[in-house]
Amino acid sequence: MRTRAAVAVESGSPMEIMEVNLEGPKAGEVLVEIKATGLCHTDDFTLSGADPEGAFPSILGHEGAGVVVEVGAGVTSLEVGDHVIPLYTPECRECDYCLNPKTNLCQKIRTTQGAGLMPDGTSRFSMLDGTPILHYMGCSTFSNYTVLPEIALAKVRKDAPFDKICYIGCGVTTGIGAVINTAKAEIGNRSIVFGLGGIGLNVIQGLRLSGADQIVGVDLNPGKVEMATRFGMTDFVNPSEVEGDLVAHLVELTGGGADYTFDATGNVGVMRTALEAAHKGWGESIIIGVAPAGAEISTRPFQLVTGRSWRGTAFGGARGRTDVPKIVDWYMNGKIEIDPMITHTMPLEDINKGFELMHKGESIRSVVLY
Amino acid sequence: MRTRAAVAVESGSPMEIMEVNLEGPKAGEVLVEIKATGLCHTDDFTLSGADPEGAFPSILGHEGAGVVVEVGAGVTSLEVGDHVIPLYTPECRECDYCLNPKTNLCQKIRTTQGAGLMPDGTSRFSMLDGTPILHYMGCSTFSNYTVLPEIALAKVRKDAPFDKICYIGCGVTTGIGAVINTAKAEIGNRSIVFGLGGIGLNVIQGLRLSGADQIVGVDLNPGKVEMATRFGMTDFVNPSEVEGDLVAHLVELTGGGADYTFDATGNVGVMRTALEAAHKGWGESIIIGVAPAGAEISTRPFQLVTGRSWRGTAFGGARGRTDVPKIVDWYMNGKIEIDPMITHTMPLEDINKGFELMHKGESIRSVVLY
Repeated sequence: MRTRAAVAVESGSPMEIMEVNLEGPKAGEVLVEIKATGLCHTDDFTLSGADPEGAFPSILGHEGAGVVVEVGAGVTSLEVGDHVIPLYTPECRECDYCLNPKTNLCQKIRTTQGAGLMPDGTSRFSMLDGTPILHYMGCSTFSNYTVLPEIALAKVRKDAPFDKICYIGCGVTTGIGAVINTAKAEIGNRSIVFGLGGIGLNVIQGLRLSGADQIVGVDLNPGKVEMATRFGMTDFVNPSEVEGDLVAHLVELTGGGADYTFDATGNVGVMRTALEAAHKGWGESIIIGVAPAGAEISTRPFQLVTGRSWRGTAFGGARGRTDVPKIVDWYMNGKIEIDPMITHTMPLEDINKGFELMHKGESIRSVVLY
Repeated sequence: MRTRAAVAVESGSPMEIMEVNLEGPKAGEVLVEIKATGLCHTDDFTLSGADPEGAFPSILGHEGAGVVVEVGAGVTSLEVGDHVIPLYTPECRECDYCLNPKTNLCQKIRTTQGAGLMPDGTSRFSMLDGTPILHYMGCSTFSNYTVLPEIALAKVRKDAPFDKICYIGCGVTTGIGAVINTAKAEIGNRSIVFGLGGIGLNVIQGLRLSGADQIVGVDLNPGKVEMATRFGMTDFVNPSEVEGDLVAHLVELTGGGADYTFDATGNVGVMRTALEAAHKGWGESIIIGVAPAGAEISTRPFQLVTGRSWRGTAFGGARGRTDVPKIVDWYMNGKIEIDPMITHTMPLEDINKGFELMHKGESIRSVVLY
């Protein structure tokens, strides 16, 4: 079949909207009509050429929601008409990682997914002239129709709006999951969130869900205060307005350091500040942001020997097929909010404008509606 | 009273054996006759002048065992004749740290202890000419008699030999505790221990206690193999004999990386190797060693985002008054071994020779017998 897609033809250039060929689902695969997809910094990172693993041409996008159109041989957990959210971290429920309760990093299809291919080592996408086009993060939601492995699809309730729940495919789950799955933050915790963008806001509402006593937001942009406060931030710190040492200021503000700190900036200097602002004895610092290629974090080992822990999280520690439907329920039940974070919507034709909004800092989340 | 002590008069010079003045215990303090004390790298680190917090003149030593000779006003948990092990990490059981199950870093007397003083801000030691001598780590076990706060003494059974259980005051508890308190290593774990000295050997026997399936020891000195094997090491790796990347070798040897890795070297380069040899998804790396002043650890944040944790431990995460008596029981019941690690004993007069043995790598632990 043919489908309309935004193709990343080469790094550093705008994506091109075009018709492409899409093969139907092979065994264990599913054809999905994407109804909505969010625009995430990770797509932008790859498109820019900064991602050392980026390969082109490819169809980006990994934060979508849609409907099952066709299932391949052997698919048992999904049927035509099911509503689904694509998972860039799949959940096979049978690899060593899925069977270890300490991780969500299913490895079943990691190698082929990392190479931009389906599990059989081939791509379903091609240009009309036959040139193969790579998949991206196993999702490629910047195509109106896409093919995914069955294990990379979370089945969700049918009354949830695609244009909102697509965000659960990445940002919402990453932020909330960092709190509830990775930190396992306890009621009464005091925490600090560095970076009040799309991920940071979801960390904040995750902390609110967790029953935090204090939620400190740190950002250079005071324009972030209103929204962050709406999601649960109790204290705002603008590093440019702090006299003296930022770590000392944060330690004092939190009564000795935070129980949990979260980096949602991707800046390795901020990651160090986040670690050192964690409470002596028990504070945990969790890295969410993706750092530039080659960048390194550093600190004195004394920071760890005196009881701080340095950790990280991917997809919020969530097991997608199990956890994503629950988060959709939380949204539908009003336990979490998504609507205010979707600041812009647009048709696929305007997807490059959506990334321009991101670059200007004018959007929290832009969503493409097919 | 007067007591015989090895006094660190100044950094970089051998200690001097001399008579010193010792005031009796004030309220909440206890006078202890030290019967035996181990010589630890931390004493050596301070004596060398490399410890930025080192101050002189002082009486070093923090790994002792002895008998209560006199108790000050208000002391209720100890009486004359009790056998005790001094605790450089006290346990007051009432500060915010003692009341938080996540840490053992009692802060009750931290400030004065760090300054080489008793909790009232003064020293009990002085030269015969009246010059004050500082305490060290709140213990000063290189004096035949010493004064400690009640909260810095673990009461232990009277049938345990001082010349062996003194080692529980630091090295044994630090190594075993890193496994059972900090890592909380599960039965069947695969782990790697970097550095097979006095701490590393105790990490190894802690891992054996924990029911580890694989215990890899890493050291540049093949002379360490026999003893480490005796304590439970299953595989030895000499980095100088590994062709290619050490991390890759260790990951392969452990079937994907270790569940737990422990640095017992104090070398920040080794700390990085230890982190990166931990298993993707769930491996935890625990820093035990003390790094040179100003040295920093570093890695790519990707190592953490993909599920590794970087942590540290002090005094093996043990709460001394509670845990040290249990470890003494384990020794007396044959659950752990100490005797083979005490390779040398000597009178106080020869304490500087003990440090020479340490520098030459000829001892595991030297113990001074009073």
